[in-house]
Amino acid sequence: MNWPIVARMLGLLGLLVGASMAFSLPWAFPALGQVETFEARGFWGLVFAMLCSLAVSGALYAWGHQSKSSILRKEAFATVGMGWILAGILGALPFLFSGSERAPGVKMTPIDAFFESVSGFTTTGASLLTELEDPEVIPRCVMFWRCFTHWLGGMGIIVLFVAILGQLGAGGKAMLKREVPGPITESVRPRVQESAIVMWTIYVVFSGIETVLLMSCGVSLYEALCHTFGTMATGGFSTHNSSVGFYNGGPVEFIIIIFMLLAGVNFSLYYLVFRRHHKDSWTKRLKHLTSDAELRAYLLIILVVTCLLTISLMVNGYYANLFVALRHSLFATVSIITTTGFGTEDFSNWSEFAKGLLFVLMFVGGCAGSTAGGIKVIRWVLLGKIFILEIEKAYRPNVVRPLRLGGIVVEERIRHDVVVYFCMVLVIFLGSWFLLITIEPDDLWETHGDHGIAEKLLDCGSAVAATLNNVGPGFGVIGPTENFANFSQQGKCLLTMLMLLGRLELFAILVLLTPRFWRQQ
Amino acid sequence: MNWPIVARMLGLLGLLVGASMAFSLPWAFPALGQVETFEARGFWGLVFAMLCSLAVSGALYAWGHQSKSSILRKEAFATVGMGWILAGILGALPFLFSGSERAPGVKMTPIDAFFESVSGFTTTGASLLTELEDPEVIPRCVMFWRCFTHWLGGMGIIVLFVAILGQLGAGGKAMLKREVPGPITESVRPRVQESAIVMWTIYVVFSGIETVLLMSCGVSLYEALCHTFGTMATGGFSTHNSSVGFYNGGPVEFIIIIFMLLAGVNFSLYYLVFRRHHKDSWTKRLKHLTSDAELRAYLLIILVVTCLLTISLMVNGYYANLFVALRHSLFATVSIITTTGFGTEDFSNWSEFAKGLLFVLMFVGGCAGSTAGGIKVIRWVLLGKIFILEIEKAYRPNVVRPLRLGGIVVEERIRHDVVVYFCMVLVIFLGSWFLLITIEPDDLWETHGDHGIAEKLLDCGSAVAATLNNVGPGFGVIGPTENFANFSQQGKCLLTMLMLLGRLELFAILVLLTPRFWRQQ
Ligand SMILES: [K+]
Ligand SMILES: [K+]
Repeated sequence: MNWPIVARMLGLLGLLVGASMAFSLPWAFPALGQVETFEARGFWGLVFAMLCSLAVSGALYAWGHQSKSSILRKEAFATVGMGWILAGILGALPFLFSGSERAPGVKMTPIDAFFESVSGFTTTGASLLTELEDPEVIPRCVMFWRCFTHWLGGMGIIVLFVAILGQLGAGGKAMLKREVPGPITESVRPRVQESAIVMWTIYVVFSGIETVLLMSCGVSLYEALCHTFGTMATGGFSTHNSSVGFYNGGPVEFIIIIFMLLAGVNFSLYYLVFRRHHKDSWTKRLKHLTSDAELRAYLLIILVVTCLLTISLMVNGYYANLFVALRHSLFATVSIITTTGFGTEDFSNWSEFAKGLLFVLMFVGGCAGSTAGGIKVIRWVLLGKIFILEIEKAYRPNVVRPLRLGGIVVEERIRHDVVVYFCMVLVIFLGSWFLLITIEPDDLWETHGDHGIAEKLLDCGSAVAATLNNVGPGFGVIGPTENFANFSQQGKCLLTMLMLLGRLELFAILVLLTPRFWRQQ
Repeated sequence: MNWPIVARMLGLLGLLVGASMAFSLPWAFPALGQVETFEARGFWGLVFAMLCSLAVSGALYAWGHQSKSSILRKEAFATVGMGWILAGILGALPFLFSGSERAPGVKMTPIDAFFESVSGFTTTGASLLTELEDPEVIPRCVMFWRCFTHWLGGMGIIVLFVAILGQLGAGGKAMLKREVPGPITESVRPRVQESAIVMWTIYVVFSGIETVLLMSCGVSLYEALCHTFGTMATGGFSTHNSSVGFYNGGPVEFIIIIFMLLAGVNFSLYYLVFRRHHKDSWTKRLKHLTSDAELRAYLLIILVVTCLLTISLMVNGYYANLFVALRHSLFATVSIITTTGFGTEDFSNWSEFAKGLLFVLMFVGGCAGSTAGGIKVIRWVLLGKIFILEIEKAYRPNVVRPLRLGGIVVEERIRHDVVVYFCMVLVIFLGSWFLLITIEPDDLWETHGDHGIAEKLLDCGSAVAATLNNVGPGFGVIGPTENFANFSQQGKCLLTMLMLLGRLELFAILVLLTPRFWRQQ
């Protein structure tokens, strides 16, 4: 391992994270919010966190800045994996230094703050905070930082880093590939920096539009920004205890549904449609959307699941009005498939069928190249096709059929990678579930009486699924209106690791756990 | 599809199953048991079932007997898949014709009988019968038939068929490969018939030894045979409501542990050790055992899990005596990893950790080429190695390392097949779980009160795992002392299909569900 170069890259990344804390500072000022002693403490806590971040990052950069060699694939892996952990640590400092409280009177521990920060950067949106609306529990500016971490992590801190710093050779491409989700990461543009700039530009423009639209519905700038960060990054942190349910339906809910949907689509498609110097007609441009196999599957799944959920909710009599049932079904479906995790209704109370469906949806996830988590629609499409081919291969071993997606032959290597990825996700899911059950004490659930233990098993399963797929809320004690505060410290550590594994699609974190990675020259 | 040849093969298979019912008849005779009206009805029911089976099979054979062409791979698949379904149907007739009762006063429906018969042939051992010891509920001779189906299915009806009928060309090899579990099915002997004969001979000899040993402990011939069938086939049907717990520990339990262990080992290894005309010394012969990577992993897992279970049971205070805890832990571990499913204690009452461990063990299963179900130890060993190689490949894509097992390079194709197999099993497991929750009414669990629904979800999950892995008993309402009688008719149909999927390692059944299989010429 070429340590100096890794240190230089981590230092630069840390500087980026530290500097971005500056955007949260204005929200503590009297002109933009009310002055309070507690809020002032938040301001100084944030300033101190920023200085700390810059100092640590500066030191790392200073150590490595003389290294002139270019970054290789192995260093790229180390930078991505450790860079995200570093971002999580630095992002936790504002919570700690401002004295934010998990619940009134309960200070956040370092593990709590790290959990909340990683949950932000990975766009999981799993929260430990129980009182979001009490200004004496968490300062306004720290709350803004919490939502801002979503936005940084959504399109990717490494992508931003590459967009700003420029081409970093083969290693830069490898880093980008680790952070942009999906099995096939073909660059939209030949140059790495250019595609990073394009993706961030689209992201900023969409975010701007959503903020303006939300403000036009009477939402304050502060809340509009926070919810935009949660939507476009498919994060799910809200400033309200009742999440988007606070707005009681209407246009705000509708805008958020639309932008969640948009955030779950491959950003490369937007580039193909909106690029300048374009000679094609709009019909031909939109053909990029209609001909995309993944996008079609994504929209089809949303349509089917929404209908099934609506029927289930109506049949079981949860809502008397068809329109209300449809609205809540659509919101829940889009919120879960894009792994945003915003809530309007507590779907923990819905029928078993509805919950089972949403649980499966957590593993589906959005499209590759979007800000969404989960396994990604394209992998499911490919897996289905692979299964059909494998079944045929069993009785016709000599007939070799290529795997096609939208008319294009998919490489043998990608075919293997997709199956390995599924296998790893499912094994990690089942293994972590068992581990969480084992390390988590029964106390919390024993109050439910005899069958509390059964609830524990299910709640642990949904916590693992919700963090590994970067969804955020699950069912039961971690449902959309409750949260992760109840888990033990060791449980929170495990869940934090799962969020990182999910966001970086396993490998960048798994290599860090392999002794061979550290031993080899 | 060459239908006449498939009909001929199915006819022969049916004749084999029908003829084998004759072995159950003697147990209805006065000299061997007591004369009773109910028992006499069992005798005539069995005779009638036998005649029916022979008639149907004879008709099938008569239709196809003129076909002289040799069986091809596709026909082999159809024969295996449909042959097992046919065996299940024919095997269900004795239950129906004898008027056997699921519980006192409750007649078995055709679906019940099919469930019990498939559970027997697939060596799952999941039962619907609640009163095994009441001679007025199920006749003695039908009870013997129930256990005998285990023995036929354990080493495989197709293997027996090939052993008797001889070489069937390429198709015969393909059929054998579908029935003998494991990713690598290298023939022990060059000729297919010879290896089939060898495997059945070893199976018969081991069964004989176990029967004699059990009888030497004072068990009657009838019970000794029934429990031998359950052990050597890793089936798990018992003649007692309390399963092996009836014998209250002691030598019987010990003998059953040893023979379950032996039944879970690859039978090819026994051939290598015991073959005649052997010039090697015994040291060299035993080296086949000690050098086998799968066998070592299998024994290591049993050792580790037994220790963990013992510690968990002692710490949680389930048993005061270390020896008793160790005995029950060893029995449960061996019973579950070999997917036998015999019980001495109701492990449904054990701690969450212990249950979780046993649940994971269900998916491990025995060795390839044994009579055990589950995913098989060798696939887990290979999967672990594949994961390590894939993680390394992520950051060193140009370094191609071969996958080695016991020093031998494993083909790329098998590597892919193992991952696909895991993926399919896990997807089928999760999909069937969701389906079972959906189609199963809540009534049964609602009596448990508020948290009954959580219990339902878990019980359904354990039912799916127990049938798909051919284990038999699960936890909760289907624990070792309760059974599957409570499930709805549609739920039983799903579970029956899972047993067949598990026993034939998916493909022979999956192809039957593929329209392309039937369409193609
Ligand atoms: K989320
Ligand atoms: K079994």
